[in-house]
Order: sequence, then C-alpha cells, then structure tokens
Amino acid sequence: MKKVGVAILGLGVVGSGTYRVLTENHDRIAKSQNLDVQVEAVLEINPERARMLGIEERKITASIAEVVGNPAVDVVVEVIGGIEPAKTFITAALKNGKSVVTANKELISKCWAELETYARRNHVGLYFEASCVGGVPIIRTLTEGMQANNVQSMVGIINGTTNYILSKMSKEGSDYATALRQAQECGFAEADPTADVEGYDASYKIAILSSLALSERVTVSDVFRQGITDVQAVDIRLGAELGYVLKLLAIAKNTEKGVEARVHPAFVSKTHPLASVDGPFNAVLLHGDMVDDIMLYGRGAGSLPTASAVVSDICYAATRSEPWYAPFRNTDDPAEAVKINTNFLSQYYLRLFVSDQKGALSRVAGVLGENGVGIREVLQKGESKDGFATVIFITHQTEENDMSRAIEGLKQLDEVKSVESLIRVEQ
Amino acid sequence: MKKVGVAILGLGVVGSGTYRVLTENHDRIAKSQNLDVQVEAVLEINPERARMLGIEERKITASIAEVVGNPAVDVVVEVIGGIEPAKTFITAALKNGKSVVTANKELISKCWAELETYARRNHVGLYFEASCVGGVPIIRTLTEGMQANNVQSMVGIINGTTNYILSKMSKEGSDYATALRQAQECGFAEADPTADVEGYDASYKIAILSSLALSERVTVSDVFRQGITDVQAVDIRLGAELGYVLKLLAIAKNTEKGVEARVHPAFVSKTHPLASVDGPFNAVLLHGDMVDDIMLYGRGAGSLPTASAVVSDICYAATRSEPWYAPFRNTDDPAEAVKINTNFLSQYYLRLFVSDQKGALSRVAGVLGENGVGIREVLQKGESKDGFATVIFITHQTEENDMSRAIEGLKQLDEVKSVESLIRVEQ
Repeated sequence: MKKVGVAILGLGVVGSGTYRVLTENHDRIAKSQNLDVQVEAVLEINPERARMLGIEERKITASIAEVVGNPAVDVVVEVIGGIEPAKTFITAALKNGKSVVTANKELISKCWAELETYARRNHVGLYFEASCVGGVPIIRTLTEGMQANNVQSMVGIINGTTNYILSKMSKEGSDYATALRQAQECGFAEADPTADVEGYDASYKIAILSSLALSERVTVSDVFRQGITDVQAVDIRLGAELGYVLKLLAIAKNTEKGVEARVHPAFVSKTHPLASVDGPFNAVLLHGDMVDDIMLYGRGAGSLPTASAVVSDICYAATRSEPWYAPFRNTDDPAEAVKINTNFLSQYYLRLFVSDQKGALSRVAGVLGENGVGIREVLQKGESKDGFATVIFITHQTEENDMSRAIEGLKQLDEVKSVESLIRVEQ
Repeated sequence: MKKVGVAILGLGVVGSGTYRVLTENHDRIAKSQNLDVQVEAVLEINPERARMLGIEERKITASIAEVVGNPAVDVVVEVIGGIEPAKTFITAALKNGKSVVTANKELISKCWAELETYARRNHVGLYFEASCVGGVPIIRTLTEGMQANNVQSMVGIINGTTNYILSKMSKEGSDYATALRQAQECGFAEADPTADVEGYDASYKIAILSSLALSERVTVSDVFRQGITDVQAVDIRLGAELGYVLKLLAIAKNTEKGVEARVHPAFVSKTHPLASVDGPFNAVLLHGDMVDDIMLYGRGAGSLPTASAVVSDICYAATRSEPWYAPFRNTDDPAEAVKINTNFLSQYYLRLFVSDQKGALSRVAGVLGENGVGIREVLQKGESKDGFATVIFITHQTEENDMSRAIEGLKQLDEVKSVESLIRVEQ
C-alpha cells in the first residue's frame, strides 16, 4: 500500500477536522484508495490544541522549515487562512517538493498564478477543493466531470453566513442586524463578519470557480461585488408577496460581450432550484452546453465537511502520477486579462416612493420606458404616507447601463420622493 | 498534445450524441484537457446513420475485429446497450489492450466482476459514468470526491421515465396508463417500457452505485425491486393531501444489520429535497459520515447529457497513467456476498376500506399496535360506500417484517373489506 505522509499547518476548525477525518477514517481511506495516509507533522503555535487532539509530541512543531524539510512529508495541508503566513508556508512547501492542499480561498484567488509557478517548477501539485463550497466537490466536478462542456453559466449560493442570515430574515421577518446577531450567536457568523457579509468570501470563490469553468483566468478584481449589509426586511417581505426569495448569488456567465463574474443580492422565483437552499447549505447550478443543467448541493462550511474536501484532495494528489495544473494560461498580467462584461443583463426589483397624485405613475413608467426598461410586474400598495405610496416594479431583462440611467432619470422626477431599493432578479 | 483515438460502437441516441460532442467540442477538450481526441472508427450495422453524421467512409465498419485490431484506437466506447453483443465487444476490446468506456448499466451491474478481470489482466480500464444518472457525475463524485467518507446512505431518483410518469400523475391527476401513454408520445418512455416501469433500470444503477458507495460488491440479485405499474391516482391525490409526493426511489443504506439496496415507489414530504425533482430530471442524495448531506441533480438521460458523461470518461481514462479499478473485491462468488438486510426500517402509507360500524377503527388500530406498528397520522374520509370508508394511516418507522404480519392480521378482520395500498414513506 502506498504510504502518504501529511503535514497539517494550523489546527483550527478545518485543521482539527482534517486530523479527525484522517484518524477516524484511516481504514476507510486505506480500503477504498489503497493509501496509508499518516499525519507526520503538525504546525501549530498553540501546542495545547495538538495535545487535546492526542497528537504525539514529536510531531508538533512551530517551524515551517522543519515541516518542509521532513522527508516523511509528501503533502502539506495549509488550513490557516488569509494571505500571510499561509503564502510563505505554501511557497516553502512547493519549493521543497511537497504538493500542497489548501482551503484558502483568499490566497488562491489572489496569488494563484504565482503559486502555480512554484508548483510547476518543482513538479508538484496545488489543490484547493476545500476553498470553495465546503465538502461539495464542485472543483472536482468542473475538472473531472465537465470536460466535454463549455460551461455557459454558473449561479450559486456559496457563502453559508449570508445564506443563514437571509434565510432567517425570510423566515422570521427580522431585520439585518437582528439576523446577523443570531448568526453570530449560533456560530454561523464571525465576530467580525465583514469578509462574509460584504461578499468578499463569495468573490474569492467565484473568481476561482469561474476560472475553472471558463478555462480563463478570472481574478478577484474582475468580480463585481455587493454584499448584504443594505438588505431591508421590507424588500424581503414584498418580494415574497410577489413570489420571490432573496439570496446572495455568485454568478459567472460566458456571453458574447465577455465574461460576467459577480456577487450581489438577488431575488429568485420561489420555484427556482436555489430558492430552497437554506441556512448553512450551499448550492451551485451549472449550465453546460452538452450536459444542460446540473446542480450540486451540500454544506458549504463546517469542520468535518470542509475536512472531507481536504482529504479528498490529499487522495487525489496521491493517486495522480502527474500533478494537476490549471488548464489555462494562469497569469496576473493585465495584458492577458480575460474580457469582462460589466453591462450585465438582468431583471430588476425596484421599490420607489411615488406621489399618489394623478399622472405620477404614468411619468414614472415613462422614464423607465424612455431608458429601455421594460416593465413585467407592478405592485402598488394602497396605503400612502405624506402623499407618497410604495410602488414596486419588476422589470424585464435590462442592461445595467440602461437601468442606471433610468434610476438617474427617476431621481429627477418630483413625483419620485426616493428610490428605496434596486435589487437584481435572477431568472 | 496527447492524441487519443476513440472507436464508437453503436450510433444510436448516445452514440450519435458522443460523436457530436467529440466533434463540436473538440477544441474545448483540447484546450482544457490537452487532449486531441479523434474518432478513428465507428461500428454500426446501419451505415446510413454514420453517413448522416458525416463520418468518413473509411472509418465505418461492421467488424469488431477490425475495431479492436486498429492501432489508432486507444479507447472503445460501447453505447449499444444490453448484454449481447455488447459483452462480446467489450471483452474483445479489453483483451486487445483497449480501455473501455460504456453507458451499459445492465451489463456492468451483471457482469462487472468478469469484465474487470479482463481489464486488470490487460492493464486497461473500464469506465461507466454514463451508465448512471446521465451527465450528472455521480460516479466521479463517489470515487474522487467522497474518499474521506463512509457513505451511510444514498437515496435517489435515477430513472427519468418513471419520474416523468409520476410527475404527470401528480400534476394532472391522471391514471398510470394515461401518463405512460403521454410519456411514450413525448419520447420519455419506450414502446416496451418494462425495463423502466418495473424498476429494472433503477435496480441496475443502484447495484453499481451502492457498490461504489459502500466499497462492497452489491449485485442486482441483492436489490429489492418494485416498479410503478400498480400506482393508483387516488393514492397520489390522498398523499398530496397529507403533504407527500410519490417518487420511484432507489435507496442504498449501510446499517448494522447489513446493506439495504432497494427500488420501490415511496412518498417523500413535499419539503424533502427530492420532492421537487420533476419530469426527466434525476437526483441523488448522499450522506457521508464526514461531509454530511450532498445532493447532485441534473438530466438523467438524453443524447447530449449522456454523451457528456461518456466523453468525461474518455478524458479521465486518457489522463490517468494507471487505470482505475473498483476499490473492493469484485466478485460474483456467493461465498463472498455482502450481508444484505431485507427487514427494512421504513414509514408506511396504508390505505384500507374499513367498515363504518362502531369499534371498527379501534380493532384496526389494535391489530397495528399488536404487531409493533405505531401510528403517526390517520385520515378518514367522511364518505362511505356500501358501509365501508377509506382510512389512511401513516405509520412511524416500522420493520418490514412487522408490517407484513400486521397486513396479514388486517386481512383477517371482518371490519377490513380490503387492504388497498401499502406504500413506503421515506424520511
């Protein structure tokens, strides 16, 4: 049986989960993969974490040099997160001929080209299934299941924190601040939730996933990003009346005008496959030109689910004779940047306070029409306040630029007290 | 770039789809896989099919010997279906050192051990992603995504014909015969629909999938099989009243009492992830001990979706230096058969005609209780006919043996005119 020596860098949530999976399911892995996977070293500045897991003293170190110089180590697992020291550690591992498995979405989305250069030069691999959608094998599906397809679109819920918050707001009618607090209390949101709620986490992931799907390098700066911090309970409620559910969507599309890569709140119809993806669950809906629609669903985070993906990569790395590399020119050179389209085509939900005087609605609809915005649905609530009523429009597919101009036009109207909300609607 | 020569055996729905995918997406495959995949030979007894696809005359043959003796052929794709001549052709290919990619669920489920012997002896591979769930990469997920897990259960809708029929019956209130006829008219059911509607197709697939999931050889004879030919519209309607949707489920479970592998109609709650899987779509819900729940969803059949899986396997075969083999002792030897549990634990939907006389319900409930069957829900319709009323029970989790005895007991009661339906309910 082939022996595989693993070093785990970091014994936080995912690191400790990885250790547990490798020990508890050692025999399962041996039987199904014919691999004897052993943890040979653990890098952790807090040795108490290692001792609590029952790791032998001789395997615990705080020295990356010791780890990457250890001949018994074949694969280095980086589960610290963030740019540094993870980048330095991964670079050291690659330069010392160790393949690397990581869960680090920020690092891969920002430094993939550079790290892959070291991997290629040293003829080792760089694997990151665990960086996207937890234990759900979306990367494996893209690289080993979708080879026959041009992936034309990818739409997903790929951040558990924001999905948990929005699901709470939908089910309980609560406001954002309340739902965020509940998420923090239940461990679904960090004390500092910025990375999740501002959409950074999802933007890192969609940069990685869309690169693999489209076989073109999509960088974080190519991703349009808008988080959920401005979401209002009233829009979730009114959207529900119209048959919509609000999600933070991560979207990648290949269009004639270029690649779209974007993260933003969006309504989906309650019959849409993603509408019922709730709480900490994630899902990715792919459309391939040959396979048609495929959806993958599962836990997007969590100690054991994410560790499952880490260990899947350890096995994948160990059973390949040649390392896997990104199947596109992996570069940060702006001259080779993929052509990006920011003039998205989308439907919109638009909520306004409109004067309840005669002719007001006509003028509002007129401005929309003049700017190329077609109206699909209208909801005007009967109650008005201070002479203004709430009016909601759901538009037909509209270009972003046209919508922006229409909004400017609406703001000029006396009849429009305010443009309260503009939320995309994904078909 | 590595050149891969492919021979396609059969130009039916999947074969012609495979040819289309390989020609239309040749460059996509070249770019993302670094493979120049060329169709070198086509085996088809009706040469007109080949000409209509524009295949060069010199590549068309009716001789398997010519195909497997062709040095330009690396991978043989069998998409004829059925046992013979597919088995003879695949055996010839393996013995002549060609890897085989097939969509043939019946052949693999019945002859896997024998064919794998030839594959191993000749150091080539046998791949069959396309045999299960069309283009959805369930096999790739099990073998390359779930390595860290003990898969404890797998529940799926894996036959498009029966799902289409049941979806029609649910949406339109039609009876089985009407829905079957509609399915045949729309091309979702064969003229002879037996293989699908009697559950054979699903039983072949669940034998294959549960073997991979559990790393134990599960054969077709291990699978409990019950099709949809006895499904009555009244039960679909009454089930819907109680909040349930009827599906043909394929289930594999690893329990302390042994492996359960079964195909049968079952109700699921309308909030169950599989409830909304409609028409020709399939889905598989897996539970791994580390990754928790994962679901894969997509088109389970169709020319291009299935061809997408065929081509995925061609690429997978060509990019491995060592062939993949089943990670368990692959044998038909009854002495090594996996331990099977047929005393399933399940909830049940039970519909009876019960006398509307005093005490009748009490006696019926009494028989259930005496046989260890707990009652979770009861629905008695007010209308009675000839002194008998329809009564429906939803039981708690009950062992199959207990339920069988309870049914026998009920049939003995004068108060029970007939036991109309017994349908499992899957949680």
